Amino acid sequence: MTYTPINLTQKLTTFSDHWSPKIIAQMNDYHFKLVKLQGDFVWHRHVDTDEVFLVLQGSMQIDFRDGSVALRAGEMFIVPKGIEHKPWAEKECHVLLVEPAGTVNTGDAGGDLTADNASWV
Amino acid sequence: MTYTPINLTQKLTTFSDHWSPKIIAQMNDYHFKLVKLQGDFVWHRHVDTDEVFLVLQGSMQIDFRDGSVALRAGEMFIVPKGIEHKPWAEKECHVLLVEPAGTVNTGDAGGDLTADNASWV
Repeated sequence: MTYTPINLTQKLTTFSDHWSPKIIAQMNDYHFKLVKLQGDFVWHRHVDTDEVFLVLQGSMQIDFRDGSVALRAGEMFIVPKGIEHKPWAEKECHVLLVEPAGTVNTGDAGGDLTADNASWV
Repeated sequence: MTYTPINLTQKLTTFSDHWSPKIIAQMNDYHFKLVKLQGDFVWHRHVDTDEVFLVLQGSMQIDFRDGSVALRAGEMFIVPKGIEHKPWAEKECHVLLVEPAGTVNTGDAGGDLTADNASWV
């Protein structure tokens, strides 16, 4: 049989909301998620896990308490477990996230931007 | 301080050998690896883990005993744990792999194409 690949660009056409990661694949107990970012997110941390950001389109920044990293398409960064961070993007930016299944986008912070952590596209 | 992102295109300029994955990042106990594929790989399986292929440039195919999947740039596929597969690419193809640290490229098959599983770039 012919298996179907997961096309990132096609998956990105299926939603338009910001800061709401959508699961596209599971590897062992990890999820691959797509998210569209624009504006400011909240300061938070993930106490149990590192978190991968891989920029697919546009550019974004992740602020830390002691500095920041700027990411463009084709660049990735791994936020270490327990480190407070605040992602933001001036213009809409498309990102692939990799993190354990069940990871909550706002980590320990909670609040209005907390998204469903089990939404597939 | 200003942190430095991992630039996939830049990392790909640092090596040219085929079928020899290079580690670029670690998330928890998982490695992100870049690999350049050309020609045929060997049939093998990873008995303990799923394996992620995300094509960055070019195209490739993964054959299974019951079919195949064709992947182009911007497409990904997760080979399930235990499933025999044979990746191949007619022309050079650049791929991002995600798998547990220590995963051996030839899985249970071994042989001449077995690469160092701890090589960073």
